[in-house]
Amino acid sequence: MTEPARFSQPYYAVAWHGDINGHLRILDQTRLPSEIVYRDCKTVEEVWQAIRSLQVRGAPAIGIAAAYGVVLAAQQATQPGGPDAVLKACDYLATSRPTAVNLFWALNRMRQVVGRVHYGNVRDLQNALLREAHAIRDEDAAMCRRIARVGAQLIHDGMGILTHCNTGALATAEYGTALGCIFFAAEEGKRIQIYADETRPLLQGARLTVWELMQRHIPVTLICDNMAAVLMRQKRVQLVLVGADRIAANGDTANKIGTYGLAVLARAHGISFYVAAPSSTFDLALPDGKGIPIEERDPREITEPLGCRIAPEGAVAFNPAFDVTPAELITGIITERGIIKPLTHATIANVLGSPRKSKEADQ
Amino acid sequence: MTEPARFSQPYYAVAWHGDINGHLRILDQTRLPSEIVYRDCKTVEEVWQAIRSLQVRGAPAIGIAAAYGVVLAAQQATQPGGPDAVLKACDYLATSRPTAVNLFWALNRMRQVVGRVHYGNVRDLQNALLREAHAIRDEDAAMCRRIARVGAQLIHDGMGILTHCNTGALATAEYGTALGCIFFAAEEGKRIQIYADETRPLLQGARLTVWELMQRHIPVTLICDNMAAVLMRQKRVQLVLVGADRIAANGDTANKIGTYGLAVLARAHGISFYVAAPSSTFDLALPDGKGIPIEERDPREITEPLGCRIAPEGAVAFNPAFDVTPAELITGIITERGIIKPLTHATIANVLGSPRKSKEADQ
Repeated sequence: MTEPARFSQPYYAVAWHGDINGHLRILDQTRLPSEIVYRDCKTVEEVWQAIRSLQVRGAPAIGIAAAYGVVLAAQQATQPGGPDAVLKACDYLATSRPTAVNLFWALNRMRQVVGRVHYGNVRDLQNALLREAHAIRDEDAAMCRRIARVGAQLIHDGMGILTHCNTGALATAEYGTALGCIFFAAEEGKRIQIYADETRPLLQGARLTVWELMQRHIPVTLICDNMAAVLMRQKRVQLVLVGADRIAANGDTANKIGTYGLAVLARAHGISFYVAAPSSTFDLALPDGKGIPIEERDPREITEPLGCRIAPEGAVAFNPAFDVTPAELITGIITERGIIKPLTHATIANVLGSPRKSKEADQ
Repeated sequence: MTEPARFSQPYYAVAWHGDINGHLRILDQTRLPSEIVYRDCKTVEEVWQAIRSLQVRGAPAIGIAAAYGVVLAAQQATQPGGPDAVLKACDYLATSRPTAVNLFWALNRMRQVVGRVHYGNVRDLQNALLREAHAIRDEDAAMCRRIARVGAQLIHDGMGILTHCNTGALATAEYGTALGCIFFAAEEGKRIQIYADETRPLLQGARLTVWELMQRHIPVTLICDNMAAVLMRQKRVQLVLVGADRIAANGDTANKIGTYGLAVLARAHGISFYVAAPSSTFDLALPDGKGIPIEERDPREITEPLGCRIAPEGAVAFNPAFDVTPAELITGIITERGIIKPLTHATIANVLGSPRKSKEADQ
């Protein structure tokens, strides 16, 4: 019997289809918004490639996809070598992208499952891994709903809100983080105007965020990244709301390239700058943002956007995929456990150190 | 006999070919860097279209192209109606683009020629207009050389310099303004590293600035506009150097969209921010930048870059082509008469009010 896909919305970034013999299905986000194409991933290599090539992206969604990738590896596992093969798959998936900590967090949870059921039979291991991957997915969905509810309190009727990259249902199990707060506020009936940075080089804002907002009939105006400052000066923006790929113990936040500049601009214009992220995005092992590895991607993403060469042959380009915004520029961080504000080691530890309601605290 | 084109470099934005019966030739900058295509403009309508469609762009180059456009109109003029037809052509060309004041400045010089030779025969008028257009072009070339020499004093060995849009030979009669300073410093043997903002939406930085710097073997790294802040934080940039489309009497400066944000970022990082522009870019009739009209262009420049749709059908986009940087964020303005610094009505009037060495002061 084939189980239905685990999702509760008209589109989804990532979902498991079927039972333990099933497979991962992802929405190929490189084709949006012109085409809605779902791809079936039946091997761990296909999942690695889907993450690397940004068919699936967004820190929480990457973690979920990787967890299901481990299940695909386990499907091939034999009785004696099963646990080792699964751990190797975890190591392999960890090489797909370096910055988003949710990837490593999810893979560590899958590794812990191997540790727990190491001496069981391989079918038990497979079932336990699938249950854990489902749990990671379901917990992310629940965290996003809570983040949205918490963050929507910051959004008032009539506000102009600037966002960067994509932090919606496409970046998470469902609903989203920063964009989830916006969805929730709109569902509450607040009239808001969103400004979406197109987010060069890969244009996730133009392609994904505008698409998600239009699906929900929330007013959105697309801008080039270099137009944000003018909107702030014209007082058309009262709040900047972004996601995160990794947050250090002091609140320094790695997010899509361009975020740091927005934070500086927001400060200069006296505008609140909030990050929305689940607790799985915190990396408390890092005292500050200096230790966050920043992925540098192929310069052709800049020199050949959309397959068209815009710079001369041989041009040199610099293409960091992320930057780090220092905690002192961040007004607060919206988590599923409340808003952390102001940002200090103590306030962060205080919120994140509290007993977790979700399952991950038990492991 | 056909005279050669009036230029002194391997490529040029705009040049007159031939004698009074000649025509304007422009480099179609929308095709760069993939193709070097020169277009002959033989009617005033073709010049208007070339300016509107950005085949020729850059405030000084627009002014020169418009001046030669007036000559093309005069070629068609008949004896009795000649002056009126030429004045109408000036009015018409003034509608091509609203922000760069050099356009109106050049057209006003052409109108003054009509006033002076109004009662002469039409051939005299044509010759006087061609001489004036040549003078505008030659004076711009001379001003650029002086700006370059003045501005290069600010550039030191080992500097990283960030620039935005294109301010080189392609934007002027020859050599350039902000980019001219960089060319001059490199010719002096200073080792410098240029960072070029790609400059969305029309990518003049990627397509034109990188191309001009590579022609001259000056090290240049292309970045997306949203990466500038990170370069500043990493202390890879010690100077920001941009051009201008219109400067008000208090120093408020309209320039390519994104310039204002760079100025805010430069200030936040303690980095000098200089504008380089000829005196023809000042509009002393405007007390401050509030009166500068900002061209808003087709949103499809954002939603359909390079002919590819990146945003969903029906997406709304905001596409101002320029922004205004307030004088207090500008360290100084590099003109052909020296550096104006600090920027006040008095310091600006002091430099611009001094006797002009070039011909325009006589009119």
